Amino acid sequence: MMTEIAATTATERMIDEVSARVLAAVTRVETELLPRNSVSKGDPRDPAVIAAYIDHTLLKPEATAAQVRQLCAEAAAHHFASVCVNPSYVALSAGLLDGSGVPVCTVVGFPLGATPAAVKAFETNQALLDGATEIDMVIAIGALKGGEYQTVYDDVAAVCAAAHAAGALVKVIIEAALLSDEEKVAACVLSVAAGADYVKTSTGFGPGGATAADVALMRRVVGPDVGVKAAGGIRTLADALAMIEAGASRIGASAGVNIVAEARR
Amino acid sequence: MMTEIAATTATERMIDEVSARVLAAVTRVETELLPRNSVSKGDPRDPAVIAAYIDHTLLKPEATAAQVRQLCAEAAAHHFASVCVNPSYVALSAGLLDGSGVPVCTVVGFPLGATPAAVKAFETNQALLDGATEIDMVIAIGALKGGEYQTVYDDVAAVCAAAHAAGALVKVIIEAALLSDEEKVAACVLSVAAGADYVKTSTGFGPGGATAADVALMRRVVGPDVGVKAAGGIRTLADALAMIEAGASRIGASAGVNIVAEARR
Repeated sequence: MMTEIAATTATERMIDEVSARVLAAVTRVETELLPRNSVSKGDPRDPAVIAAYIDHTLLKPEATAAQVRQLCAEAAAHHFASVCVNPSYVALSAGLLDGSGVPVCTVVGFPLGATPAAVKAFETNQALLDGATEIDMVIAIGALKGGEYQTVYDDVAAVCAAAHAAGALVKVIIEAALLSDEEKVAACVLSVAAGADYVKTSTGFGPGGATAADVALMRRVVGPDVGVKAAGGIRTLADALAMIEAGASRIGASAGVNIVAEARR
Repeated sequence: MMTEIAATTATERMIDEVSARVLAAVTRVETELLPRNSVSKGDPRDPAVIAAYIDHTLLKPEATAAQVRQLCAEAAAHHFASVCVNPSYVALSAGLLDGSGVPVCTVVGFPLGATPAAVKAFETNQALLDGATEIDMVIAIGALKGGEYQTVYDDVAAVCAAAHAAGALVKVIIEAALLSDEEKVAACVLSVAAGADYVKTSTGFGPGGATAADVALMRRVVGPDVGVKAAGGIRTLADALAMIEAGASRIGASAGVNIVAEARR
């Protein structure tokens, strides 16, 4: 118990210190963080509730239009939170899901995050034009590691400006498996300051996926009013429940149909 | 010997059949293929010659500006064919290499290839503005697998139009490890028809890198006047020489400094 309190205190102190340092480095921080994403969805063991957490995801580069059609049909049948597809399939998915109530999520600067802000903003605008209403962008990982916080902030802000003008959500993927805990905190602080609606653990293409520890850390940093999306390697209901227990308000998974089937049993 | 001739004949027939099918499916094929990339560089065991084959590459998402600075210094010292960096580092690299004679290569639609043609063209234009003169784009892999040849062609043509207007080269990454041999042939035929200066085996982020067999197949399809770049997993001089022996005219590698050091010994 003493150890747990000590660990918590050390983590809290690290969060405070990194947050102060990052915010001091970024000159154009917005102070107003609206409660845009409070979590109150019911018992996630309920099939309908867990489905509403899941971004039904197909991001493999070799995915064909036929596979995207099947993904959209499954999303409409199970009322997933969204379908998450690559940008080249947004128009197709938006057409198929028109009137279904299932939004189309896509990815920007994905999965490396290493394109300039102007390119990420253009890619976002194209996705919005094609019918996406949720944008999962990858943070500028190298800039973050190099301590170029203003670059990281401006990059997120550029995507948020484009997306929010169209009423779309932005989830910022921090690719936690490539970051130290301090870098994870800095990534979350910068993302929220720049307008992110969610922070997201992983692309699914990095060296590791979501962990409960990362989700808990991210939730602690962003507070209750910003979303946390756990993604990468979530294959079972138990995986999903562990992420929700740790603080996730959205789950990215390609195994959504199986996860819902598990909840039904 | 009989087996080898039979295999060659079967491969030739497959190439002919796939080429005819793909070309018939694409209505706007350009017939004029200029000899833009003939190979005559000398003995690749010579350190200066092997260096001139190598795109000195750093595409890790976590790469910092400091690491890119070192990459550029190494490229200038060894006279590599280019540095190959992510789009967010093109401006930095172009500034550092100004006057060195080493061009800046970057990647577009990388590594999934799953962004719309308009996004790839915008990304290309931004890279050209930032100082890149070589563009390694990823083909629309899912569209290729779905037999949507016109989409694949238009995608490559959009990047070529932007790049060639600025006098830049285009290398089309087919991500061979995700393709059947027939799909590899189709990818090469479409790339050349749409104006590619090179075809390239791999992103280095897929399930496999360059193989001598793929390089040989690609060289056979594109003929002597279009480049073939082998990339992905080339770590030693022996690896590089095997690729050149198989028909590669450019090598993508992060191990360029070690490869040149091996050639010196």
